[in-house]
Amino acid sequence: MKNKKSLQVIKIGGNIIDNPKELKQFLTDFSAIEGLKILIHGGGKSATKMAKSIGLLPQMIDGRRVTDARMLDVVVMIYAGQINKNIIAQLQAHNTNAMGFSGADGNLIKSSKRDHPTIDYGFVGDVKSINTPLLETLLSIGIVPVFCAITHDKDGQLLNTNADTIASELAIAFSDVFEVTLNYCFEKPGVLFDSEDDCSVILNMNAELYSKLKEEKAIHSGMIPKLDNCFNSLSKGVKKIKIGHHNLLQNENSVCTTIQL
Amino acid sequence: MKNKKSLQVIKIGGNIIDNPKELKQFLTDFSAIEGLKILIHGGGKSATKMAKSIGLLPQMIDGRRVTDARMLDVVVMIYAGQINKNIIAQLQAHNTNAMGFSGADGNLIKSSKRDHPTIDYGFVGDVKSINTPLLETLLSIGIVPVFCAITHDKDGQLLNTNADTIASELAIAFSDVFEVTLNYCFEKPGVLFDSEDDCSVILNMNAELYSKLKEEKAIHSGMIPKLDNCFNSLSKGVKKIKIGHHNLLQNENSVCTTIQL
Repeated sequence: MKNKKSLQVIKIGGNIIDNPKELKQFLTDFSAIEGLKILIHGGGKSATKMAKSIGLLPQMIDGRRVTDARMLDVVVMIYAGQINKNIIAQLQAHNTNAMGFSGADGNLIKSSKRDHPTIDYGFVGDVKSINTPLLETLLSIGIVPVFCAITHDKDGQLLNTNADTIASELAIAFSDVFEVTLNYCFEKPGVLFDSEDDCSVILNMNAELYSKLKEEKAIHSGMIPKLDNCFNSLSKGVKKIKIGHHNLLQNENSVCTTIQL
Repeated sequence: MKNKKSLQVIKIGGNIIDNPKELKQFLTDFSAIEGLKILIHGGGKSATKMAKSIGLLPQMIDGRRVTDARMLDVVVMIYAGQINKNIIAQLQAHNTNAMGFSGADGNLIKSSKRDHPTIDYGFVGDVKSINTPLLETLLSIGIVPVFCAITHDKDGQLLNTNADTIASELAIAFSDVFEVTLNYCFEKPGVLFDSEDDCSVILNMNAELYSKLKEEKAIHSGMIPKLDNCFNSLSKGVKKIKIGHHNLLQNENSVCTTIQL
């Protein structure tokens, strides 16, 4: 176990994407991380903005975008085009040899269109497999993969896919080969005891504490699927998960929530 | 020389991009090509259409798009996002292990912002260098690179770049290592003796014939920069250039213009 190389899997949310200054700082910090790393980015508000400007009305069910054919076109443009390529160009300026990918590129992430008994999510994909050997080769030649939240079904169809899930599936897929830390960067400094108080960060979380906090209803409803997902990743071999503001990347001692089994 | 592997560099124009049926047929033919290959695609009409739908007026000078910041955003979205990722997904369905790139990805194509004494082209880049070693590695592990016409300056700026030029620069960069055929696929069956008659394809062209045809003004003005570019590529080591309809990929004997020194 001790001979495994470390791999940082880092997911950034829309709050960073939507703020050029924050994004710039994040990309500077990300570039400074030594060793192997993979970035996954969400979409932010620009897809919704673009959709509105061309007359599409975005639909949400249970916090997930319902993606019809025209909306898929928009998210592919914005996520794989505008956001991904601008991130890549900025990372290259930091001498980070980044390459931007959708799941279709190199068949890196295959998904299947979600089949739900009552809700038609449209062109939304659930991750089925990761092309770990090809990604390992890319990492071994110094490439830093940067994924947007678009995958494909290997039958020619692109699919909109949850970025948190892509991050956790990548982390799980590599946990045999690397000692993986999964980092979720969002607008809060961590998981909070009191969702109104940013100073109430739960520094260390384990399964026992999580059960207790759920029982006491101290954890906010939106946080539950995220944390369930975290414990699932840990049970499948991911070593450690960090949740917090992106300055958690700056040093080991930054305030954030660290989750371990 | 005879031990060099073959490499096909293939550029497709907007006429194929804009026609889903043509594109599907092209991608089927492209997938069937054995050996090493690289695809470069232009933009087609969707960038202009998108620009119009969000209220931008496209500007052209000497047949080249003038690219301000908002137009750059649009071409990055459309070329690197929508068009590139849909091509990749379709190639993957044909079991072609394609990866879509801008020049920023892996620092594969570095350009510099065009500096013109009288015309401000905006965010337009002229190719400066190709990351041949990384592309060779990718080819050697079975990746089929698919480039859109976006490059970067390595200082964080994406730049709109002529797709024909990207194709010729790639062909030249690889001519030391591979026996390179450069293929330009467009709406005509080849270079024509009479631009009104599609049956008047010049099957074989060399420098001598080209001089003669230019003298006789038999060659259309728009064709001259394209052909000058071809002879430049040949003088820099490219073995052969084919110009014609994309069915030239189907077999060695399809009608097209073949240009050699």
